[in-house]
Amino acid sequence: MMLPSNDPQRKSWLPVPAGSDFPIQNLPLGIFTTDADPLPRIGMAIGEHVLDIAELAASGLLGDLGFDLEVLHYSTLNRLAGLGRAATRNLRERVSNLLEADCGDIAHNEVLRASALIPMHDVTMCMPVDIRDYTDFYSSIEHATNVGIMFRGKDNALMPNWKHLPVGYHGRASSIVVSGTEVRRPKGQMLPADATEPVFGPSKLLDFELEVGFIIGKGNAMGQPIPIDQTEDHMFGMVLFNDWSARDIQSWEYVPLGPFLGKNFASSMSPWVVTMDALEPFRVDSPVQDPKPLPYLQGNAPANFDIALEVQIVPAQGPSKVVSRSNFKYMYWSMRQQLAHHTVNGCNMQPGDLCASGTISGPTEDSYGSMLELTWRGSKPIHMPDGSERKFIQDGDTVVIHGHCEKDGIRIGFGGVSGKVLPALP
Amino acid sequence: MMLPSNDPQRKSWLPVPAGSDFPIQNLPLGIFTTDADPLPRIGMAIGEHVLDIAELAASGLLGDLGFDLEVLHYSTLNRLAGLGRAATRNLRERVSNLLEADCGDIAHNEVLRASALIPMHDVTMCMPVDIRDYTDFYSSIEHATNVGIMFRGKDNALMPNWKHLPVGYHGRASSIVVSGTEVRRPKGQMLPADATEPVFGPSKLLDFELEVGFIIGKGNAMGQPIPIDQTEDHMFGMVLFNDWSARDIQSWEYVPLGPFLGKNFASSMSPWVVTMDALEPFRVDSPVQDPKPLPYLQGNAPANFDIALEVQIVPAQGPSKVVSRSNFKYMYWSMRQQLAHHTVNGCNMQPGDLCASGTISGPTEDSYGSMLELTWRGSKPIHMPDGSERKFIQDGDTVVIHGHCEKDGIRIGFGGVSGKVLPALP
Repeated sequence: MMLPSNDPQRKSWLPVPAGSDFPIQNLPLGIFTTDADPLPRIGMAIGEHVLDIAELAASGLLGDLGFDLEVLHYSTLNRLAGLGRAATRNLRERVSNLLEADCGDIAHNEVLRASALIPMHDVTMCMPVDIRDYTDFYSSIEHATNVGIMFRGKDNALMPNWKHLPVGYHGRASSIVVSGTEVRRPKGQMLPADATEPVFGPSKLLDFELEVGFIIGKGNAMGQPIPIDQTEDHMFGMVLFNDWSARDIQSWEYVPLGPFLGKNFASSMSPWVVTMDALEPFRVDSPVQDPKPLPYLQGNAPANFDIALEVQIVPAQGPSKVVSRSNFKYMYWSMRQQLAHHTVNGCNMQPGDLCASGTISGPTEDSYGSMLELTWRGSKPIHMPDGSERKFIQDGDTVVIHGHCEKDGIRIGFGGVSGKVLPALP
Repeated sequence: MMLPSNDPQRKSWLPVPAGSDFPIQNLPLGIFTTDADPLPRIGMAIGEHVLDIAELAASGLLGDLGFDLEVLHYSTLNRLAGLGRAATRNLRERVSNLLEADCGDIAHNEVLRASALIPMHDVTMCMPVDIRDYTDFYSSIEHATNVGIMFRGKDNALMPNWKHLPVGYHGRASSIVVSGTEVRRPKGQMLPADATEPVFGPSKLLDFELEVGFIIGKGNAMGQPIPIDQTEDHMFGMVLFNDWSARDIQSWEYVPLGPFLGKNFASSMSPWVVTMDALEPFRVDSPVQDPKPLPYLQGNAPANFDIALEVQIVPAQGPSKVVSRSNFKYMYWSMRQQLAHHTVNGCNMQPGDLCASGTISGPTEDSYGSMLELTWRGSKPIHMPDGSERKFIQDGDTVVIHGHCEKDGIRIGFGGVSGKVLPALP
């Protein structure tokens, strides 16, 4: 769908630096505070500024968007998301028009510019949505295969169900934190190699997982599946996601009911929600699925998105290193398929729910989305610029994920998600 | 702890029928509406009545309970729960005193009696708490063993980790519904016996799971474990729980990340939260744990509770049958151990979160907590009074779970949780 807001020719009167994640074609939504006003409120990113949407709504410039503008005065995006895709689209189109080069409504209103346009370095970003339920999928065939080879050998790498359905499981919503929040190394039970009795202590194999996620917009009633060709109407937007994992805790606990304490100590999420409309120009085909999935998982193509991703380790001291370059387009199962599958049994989704992709690994060794795979369980350590090695993540390391789409000279970025690892409690 | 409210001699001026689940020693908390006032509000069950706690707070009779009584005017119990155990205790003690035989404050106040004391058959019960995160454990050794034998044979029934930690996983909170809500039979992917390709259709192996759960009161900060001997300070109360399970969907999907669509279509919960204080007289020792668990899982005894449980199938037509009689005291892992384990990695709990026990099976064949076990995967059907058979749950069947403690002539009951199964969507 070609929306005016997606036009590569469109420019804003507000200067946007070259290479910015947030040109006028993006306009992601987030929740922010400032020192002057600590009330969390809705903003849109434009270049190096945040546009205060509550302030804009109060100014009257948003006009009639087809919904009650009261939802723009909440401290989370849940209510806006719950109105469905048209509401977000109308808001984004209107703001795009207000920011467009020829429009003077904000540009020439000095009072409003001063109150509604805030330099990005003056804001603190919050969680964009109140996440009720969080689901994590396992949709990268490269990741599932790599992990399968390590744990079960080459011949049994993929489980028999893997190519028939997008495997997923429920995660912990309470411990999802916004980018910049420090993460405490977890303690737990682990079974040392060759031991028969578990021990207790700080995880030694702390890992990141390179993921993205989509946030649910309009929900569905319990008992009422979302057909695959309607799934995108229920998607609000996408975020970057680091699903921190303690591999030693996980591998001891996960049989037979899945990951638990190895995951639920923390996950980090980017603060800006890139709308599905902004991503529209970056659609690409999915990998060919063989066998063909069951009819409820067959939807319109193209259903994937070309999102370049990279992971950087920033040590407490010394220079950082990009340890992975991957892309969301490699995913075997699309978000459409994930949501159609998730609801086919009548499971009800609610606005603000998060569905994460699972670790995104590409076909090459430098595109793997976890230390587990990049260092092949620690057997091939990563060499940092300062001469140190990383098998897994060390105390003091900050893991940063970036992601962006790029085409026709337009870059739609996600900003980033970062988290620094603190030592375990004594 | 001997609280005045637990005194078996205590009687109410309000007649409580013999055998009632709700004598003055219980006073469970719930959320209700009436036709006259559809606003959900806090109530306590006493005999065949519901006491409107918001009305009572407004009357001034609750006096100073050590917290702001504003929390008693919300539509869920989350805020009261979040104040911690002392707040709930103070409220229950005060109400117990007001209902005690010698107290005339309500008894002789005809206006207040008329407004605050509502016959139970005139109320509609709602979800008592807004559940943010829901965790399901797997803490019955009989259940884990039975399922293990069926799926992996006798020699590998219990996984190596099972006796070292209370295995648990995250479930779906959005589809937990209050007792009385009808449940739609889910559709999904299943692998028929001897087939190599999955098929899609309504689940043929729909099952109940007999569980109880505890609701979190005061939460813990992320990164801060709850030591085992402080865990009960973070428990608000207990409920009955039916974790509906589609065995055919579950068995195909659950490897390697655990149950998902086989569970998340619905779970049913009882509306009355029995406080931990009301359960105090019914403590019993846990089964001996061998091997001894790691120190963080060693707590004060006795940590289990003697709660008699039964499951009844009520067909659409014809007489019902009690298909299981079990007891919560059989649980190998205690709630204390579950909560200490859940938070040992720093996972944060929030008020209103639900931790369910997992299926409660006893040592005898008639005490198993699921059809899967009772009929041994359908090989030993249950004979209903009308001559029909049940291998699993049929459309039109209502499954009802009851539970109560009994000692010194006092019965502390949970009411019940029921759910009727509707046919799958066409």
